[in-house]
Amino acid sequence: MIMFHYGPDKPDETYVSHSYPEHKIDLGEVVMNYAVAGDPASSALLLIPGQTESWWGYEKAMELLQKQFQCFAVDLRGQGRSTRTPGRYTLDNMGNDLVRFIALAIKRPVIVSGLSSGGLLAAWLAAYGIPRSIRGALCEDPPFFSSEVNTSCGHSLRQATGPLFGLLWKYLGDQWTVGDWEGLKAAALRELPPWLTTMRDRIIPQTDEPPQGLKEYDPEWGRATFSGTLAASCDHAQMLAAVKCSVLYTHHFRAIDPQSGALIGTTSDQQAAYVCNLMRSAGQRVDYRSFPTIGHRMHSLDPQLFMQTLFEWAVTL
Amino acid sequence: MIMFHYGPDKPDETYVSHSYPEHKIDLGEVVMNYAVAGDPASSALLLIPGQTESWWGYEKAMELLQKQFQCFAVDLRGQGRSTRTPGRYTLDNMGNDLVRFIALAIKRPVIVSGLSSGGLLAAWLAAYGIPRSIRGALCEDPPFFSSEVNTSCGHSLRQATGPLFGLLWKYLGDQWTVGDWEGLKAAALRELPPWLTTMRDRIIPQTDEPPQGLKEYDPEWGRATFSGTLAASCDHAQMLAAVKCSVLYTHHFRAIDPQSGALIGTTSDQQAAYVCNLMRSAGQRVDYRSFPTIGHRMHSLDPQLFMQTLFEWAVTL
Repeated sequence: MIMFHYGPDKPDETYVSHSYPEHKIDLGEVVMNYAVAGDPASSALLLIPGQTESWWGYEKAMELLQKQFQCFAVDLRGQGRSTRTPGRYTLDNMGNDLVRFIALAIKRPVIVSGLSSGGLLAAWLAAYGIPRSIRGALCEDPPFFSSEVNTSCGHSLRQATGPLFGLLWKYLGDQWTVGDWEGLKAAALRELPPWLTTMRDRIIPQTDEPPQGLKEYDPEWGRATFSGTLAASCDHAQMLAAVKCSVLYTHHFRAIDPQSGALIGTTSDQQAAYVCNLMRSAGQRVDYRSFPTIGHRMHSLDPQLFMQTLFEWAVTL
Repeated sequence: MIMFHYGPDKPDETYVSHSYPEHKIDLGEVVMNYAVAGDPASSALLLIPGQTESWWGYEKAMELLQKQFQCFAVDLRGQGRSTRTPGRYTLDNMGNDLVRFIALAIKRPVIVSGLSSGGLLAAWLAAYGIPRSIRGALCEDPPFFSSEVNTSCGHSLRQATGPLFGLLWKYLGDQWTVGDWEGLKAAALRELPPWLTTMRDRIIPQTDEPPQGLKEYDPEWGRATFSGTLAASCDHAQMLAAVKCSVLYTHHFRAIDPQSGALIGTTSDQQAAYVCNLMRSAGQRVDYRSFPTIGHRMHSLDPQLFMQTLFEWAVTL
C-alpha cells in the first residue's frame, strides 16, 4: 500500500511549475504565495480560490482578465505554497489574511472575486474589510448557509457537502499525515451519499495519484469545515447583513435530491433569494445572476463567460 | 425589582466623562473608541485593557507614561464606547482589530502592553501581528492557559475564573438584555467557589449599581469566555511558541486553594514557567518579573510601579 504525503515540507512531490511567476509576502502569521498579471496602472482585482484550489485555478481566466485588471491570485492559508496553520483555519483568520494582503501587496482599493469558500471570503471582505478598501465583491457560487453546521436558512452542511470534507480529512489526515489515497477512493464510492456524486468525481477521481489541487491542500481544512470550526463565530446571515459594497452573486447548477431532499450544488434557490434579501436590506446593490447549466468553477470551466460576466458588472461600479 | 440595561444605545445611563478626550476610528467591522496622550514625536505605546475594563482604566498610568510615550488606550470590541459584535467575540478577531488600529491610527511600530485578556492580546500581537509592527510586548498578568477550556498546561478555565464569567453572563445577559444586578449580587455570594472571593468582590461588589467598568462591558464576552468560543482556534501554547519580539511578562499575586487545588490569581508558577519556556524556545528574549504581593491590575493599583517596570524594560529594546 502506497501512502502519499504532500505539503510545503515536500516541495518536489507537491508542486508543479506554472506560466506566471509566483511571489511570497510575509503577513505575520502566514507567508502568502501569489501570482500577479496585468498592468499595475489598471484597476486591481483580487482572485480568491475555492477550497482544494490553488491560485493557478485562475490561470486561464487571468489571461483574459489581465486585459482590464491587474490580477492578484492567492493561495489561502492551508493551500498551495502558503503557510499551513494547524488549529487556526477559520473564515475570520482567512479574511484577515486577505485584509493584510490588500494593505501590504495590493495597496489600493480592489475588486474581490472568490469561488466557493473563496466566495464566502469575498462576502466577508465586503462586510468586514477595512473601510473603502473593497470596490465590489463577486461571489462565485459560494455555499452561503449550506456550509454552516447549524445554519439559519435551509440546508445545513450535513445536507450538502459536509460528508465529503469529512471523508477527505479522515483518509488524508491533518497536513497529509495519513495519506491513504487508495482508502479514500474506495470509501468515496462506498460511503458518500448519492447527492455528492458529481462533486466526488471531481475532487476524488479514481486516478493513481491525487489531483494536483488536492496535493496542495491541507486536509485539516476539511476537518475544520466538517466540524464547524471554520465558520465558528462567523454567522452567515449576520455577515451578509453587514455587507458594505456592491455585490455580484453568481449562482450555478443546483438541484434537490428527490430521495433525501439534500442539496446538489452549493445553495438552494430559497437560500440564494435570502442571501440577496439580506444584502439588500444592508442598503447595498446586489446583482444576482443565475447560471443553472454552469458547473461550480465557472472561472476555469468557462473563463470567457466568467470574464464577460465580471467585466459587464465591473464597468458599472 | 430594578433591572439595569447599559450599552452604546443608552449612552446617558452608561458613560461618564474623562480627563482625556475620546476619539473614534472606523476599522471596518468595529468602530473603536480610544484616547491619546503624549507627544506624537515620542515612541508609540498601545495600552490594552483587561476584560470588564475600558480605556480609562489606564487614566492614572497615562499621566506618568506620557512623559516617555505617545500612549494610545483603546476600548476593545464589546467594551466602553466601541462596537458590540454579538457572536463574534474571539481573540483572533480582537487581535486583528488591534492590527488595523496600529495600521490606521498609530501608523508606526509600537510597544504593546495589555492586562489580563488584554495581555493575551499583547502576546497575540507579538505572535501574529504584521511583521516589524510590534517593538515589544508587555503581558501584564494574563491568564495564559488558565483561560482555556481545554488547556495544555495546568489549571483550566473551570479551575480558575470561569465560574465568575459564566455568572456575569447568566444574570446580565448578552448586551445587558437581562440586567438582573440584584440577582447577580445574590448569586455571587451563593454560587461562586471560595477561590474566587477576591475577584468576586472586585468585579461584583455589593453596591446599588454595577461598577462603571461593568456598565461598559458586553456580558456576552463573559459567555464567550466561559464557553470557550473566545479562545477557539487560538491555542495558547501554539501562540506563545510563535512570538516574534521581546516580551516582558509580569506575574502578580497567585496561590493555590488548599481545598480544591484551584487557582487563585491568573496563572500558577508552573504555568508561568512554561509560558517563558515556550516563548524562549521561539528564540525571543523574555523578561519575567514576579510581583507576588501586587494585585491583578498593577497599572491602576500602583501606576508608579507599573511605569517604572515598563520604562526599565522599554529602554533596553
